[in-house]
Amino acid sequence: MADKKMVEAITSMDVDFAQWYTDVVKKAELIDYTSVKGCMVIKPAGYAIWELIQQHLDARFKETGVENVYLPMFIPESLLQKEKDHVEGFAPEVAWVTHGGLNPLQERLCVRPTSETLFCDFYKNDIQSYRDLPKVYNQWCSVVRWEKETRPFLRSREFLWQEGHTAHATAEDAEARTIQMLNVYADFLEEVLAIPVVKGQKTDKEKFAGAVATYTIEALMHDGKALQSGTSHNFGDGFAKAFGIQFADKDNTLKYVHQTSWGMTTRLIGAIIMVHGDNEGLVLPPKVAPVQVCIIPIQQKKEGVLDKAYELRDRLKGNFRVKVDDTDKSPGWKFSEAEMRGYSIRVEIGPKDMEAGKCVICRRDTREKIEVALDELESKVAEVLDTMQKEMLERARAHREEHTYTATNMEEFQDIFNNKTGFVKAMWCGCQECEDQIKEKLSVTSRCMPFEQEDIAADCVCCGKPAKKMVYWGRAY
Amino acid sequence: MADKKMVEAITSMDVDFAQWYTDVVKKAELIDYTSVKGCMVIKPAGYAIWELIQQHLDARFKETGVENVYLPMFIPESLLQKEKDHVEGFAPEVAWVTHGGLNPLQERLCVRPTSETLFCDFYKNDIQSYRDLPKVYNQWCSVVRWEKETRPFLRSREFLWQEGHTAHATAEDAEARTIQMLNVYADFLEEVLAIPVVKGQKTDKEKFAGAVATYTIEALMHDGKALQSGTSHNFGDGFAKAFGIQFADKDNTLKYVHQTSWGMTTRLIGAIIMVHGDNEGLVLPPKVAPVQVCIIPIQQKKEGVLDKAYELRDRLKGNFRVKVDDTDKSPGWKFSEAEMRGYSIRVEIGPKDMEAGKCVICRRDTREKIEVALDELESKVAEVLDTMQKEMLERARAHREEHTYTATNMEEFQDIFNNKTGFVKAMWCGCQECEDQIKEKLSVTSRCMPFEQEDIAADCVCCGKPAKKMVYWGRAY
Repeated sequence: MADKKMVEAITSMDVDFAQWYTDVVKKAELIDYTSVKGCMVIKPAGYAIWELIQQHLDARFKETGVENVYLPMFIPESLLQKEKDHVEGFAPEVAWVTHGGLNPLQERLCVRPTSETLFCDFYKNDIQSYRDLPKVYNQWCSVVRWEKETRPFLRSREFLWQEGHTAHATAEDAEARTIQMLNVYADFLEEVLAIPVVKGQKTDKEKFAGAVATYTIEALMHDGKALQSGTSHNFGDGFAKAFGIQFADKDNTLKYVHQTSWGMTTRLIGAIIMVHGDNEGLVLPPKVAPVQVCIIPIQQKKEGVLDKAYELRDRLKGNFRVKVDDTDKSPGWKFSEAEMRGYSIRVEIGPKDMEAGKCVICRRDTREKIEVALDELESKVAEVLDTMQKEMLERARAHREEHTYTATNMEEFQDIFNNKTGFVKAMWCGCQECEDQIKEKLSVTSRCMPFEQEDIAADCVCCGKPAKKMVYWGRAY
Repeated sequence: MADKKMVEAITSMDVDFAQWYTDVVKKAELIDYTSVKGCMVIKPAGYAIWELIQQHLDARFKETGVENVYLPMFIPESLLQKEKDHVEGFAPEVAWVTHGGLNPLQERLCVRPTSETLFCDFYKNDIQSYRDLPKVYNQWCSVVRWEKETRPFLRSREFLWQEGHTAHATAEDAEARTIQMLNVYADFLEEVLAIPVVKGQKTDKEKFAGAVATYTIEALMHDGKALQSGTSHNFGDGFAKAFGIQFADKDNTLKYVHQTSWGMTTRLIGAIIMVHGDNEGLVLPPKVAPVQVCIIPIQQKKEGVLDKAYELRDRLKGNFRVKVDDTDKSPGWKFSEAEMRGYSIRVEIGPKDMEAGKCVICRRDTREKIEVALDELESKVAEVLDTMQKEMLERARAHREEHTYTATNMEEFQDIFNNKTGFVKAMWCGCQECEDQIKEKLSVTSRCMPFEQEDIAADCVCCGKPAKKMVYWGRAY
């Protein structure tokens, strides 16, 4: 049973979801730990997913007029301190550079935890007139936050992300861009990552340090916990006033710009794993699968088998990401490995298949096997990948629906979280005391006030006073 | 003469090349200075060039089997110190993180100046058997070196680059990969950036800290100074021994791996500017020009002109990077701006052209104007871009030939550098004393021992003893 070795080493997700997750990221060779506490190596199989995420997302950004830039990784302490709420939010968790070469620095620098202050410092000089607006800039980079507890992709001291930073002439333009980017994120998650999301606004307690409003997309993982998957912030003119970013408007008066920022990170890879993965390992939506088709020769030492495998690869490689597993491992081992790594389709081809002019293809998500005539391979592969992408979204959506509950009072609320996991929709009066109480009693946080409000009750689930908003609550990563 | 304002602000390159360079990077909006000393903002026009460089180079890497990864930006001090020569080379110029959040760190971390030590730490665990070899990994990231004097793109405290790090079973494999990547670099510079290079080996004095051999591509800038444009290092098994990176070979014995690393940086953008630029501004090789065609409507308020411009854009945009300058600036201003920013081709279209069924296209490098029938626009644009790309390389090569001299004794050697700028080929005995003397007397450094050796004299240009190598010497950025 050497063939099963790889798979047997994975903990079942039903036994211990956290251990299952750790096993998958390690066995699928997505990451490795390092001598640097809280920092990971993203290995080729993991980084290739990130490259595909970047390509899709960057193209969607550019369609909306985003331009990429690069700003320094260091922020002088005095710059970080210019916006009061912002520094309070971030100062406790930044890494400080105090020496350059052999000499102490006159002013210490933090390694960027996010770049609002740097963009403000830049925009202050770059923006003079209404003709310079809007600025719709983005950068792909890494940021550092000195987290105490870390987990691969979900929370690490350094992580990769994109951060968009925009400046606009009016409050309306800033709000429109904030919502536009949230929609870009939501569409990307659904159409590319096959992950359905709830779009909504964060409560004041949960919003970004320095923002007027934070919007979020929240996804539900397989274990019923929520994952904040992307956020878009409207800063109003708060940063502009703190940094003095003014422009001469058409009416010749000086006005402050209105700003936004929005970001998504490598934690999206964690989301993919936890939404789609199974006990065989990784399941990747075909659009971000580094290997969409893995051809596995059966009895590969028999004459013509390997050549046939290479021929099929050459036929497919113009339209798909394809490889042949021509190692000397057994077919069973190769099957397990292909499943562990989340290759979308496995193509089995051996002497008997060749004689019959067919091959067997196996879908990673359903593990369904289909016999395909060799001369129909291209169209069948395209069709299966397409179906798989769609059905993965549908399954994830169904799972979320099944794990979304409604509570109208604290007993119901408590009962749900004692016995189930998922999102709970409940009404809220809008005051932070109730939010705090709910967090204390149930160990759940408000995930968002969804754009699609439902009138499920008249009163706050906690205090019983008239409710203002329906809120999604959940335990979160 | 408001139209000429942009151009008049540039210093002539013949008057003051350094100031011309600074003017171009600023006026073409490639970079901006920041509050962080020695660090730059790379603005959209500059970053777009870097994105094109990345696309071309990354595709060439992947063709040779390179896989991308991401390693942490921090290196624990103890890790940096494991290889003696390496730490001596880099410790004086690294930035040190001493605090994480509110607490001092137990061990300080440096921000990576390069990642050999991190890759070794990773490979030590990742490589067990000959089956795990070769490892051919690369990462795109930024690195930090605490430079005292900085210049946009050429030398800054933080810069963007790629760093390849490989591990091999044998010394021969490592040497072959070192040379292979140098050739990838050289071909890329010639074929994509239109910059001819001299390929060769660095002397021991100039080689990388910790390397057995450093190979380099050296390019000549318009002012006759050299720019080291890419390097490829063979480490032998030195790092492997320092870090204990061993593998079980086919013969069941434990062996040390042999390693290489190779890198190119955003200084390539500096090279493009200084090889191809002119007194009108930036000249970009079409393959890395973010705007290859800029359509400028003449009398754009006349009916149909703007529509025609958009129509031409739509016809071209499938095959070229194209934009219409439909701002309310005058055509003259737009021409100057298009030249300053290095747009490869400017297309002028006005009412008279439309009537005649033609337009005027103007090549950025030669500023030659050609009348083109509108129905031949696609093919003519393709042809002109292709010609431009080739002729830019030819001109750069001719310039380098004209500025490459030969010296057989110190008088000649001194005379050349007193009166001219460029490369000087001269024989060398191989001892560092002569290299030091030449540097002291002439303020030039050995650029490389070219692979294409010429036997220009029997004796060392400095000491007169029998020569071992012909060396390229020059003043360098």
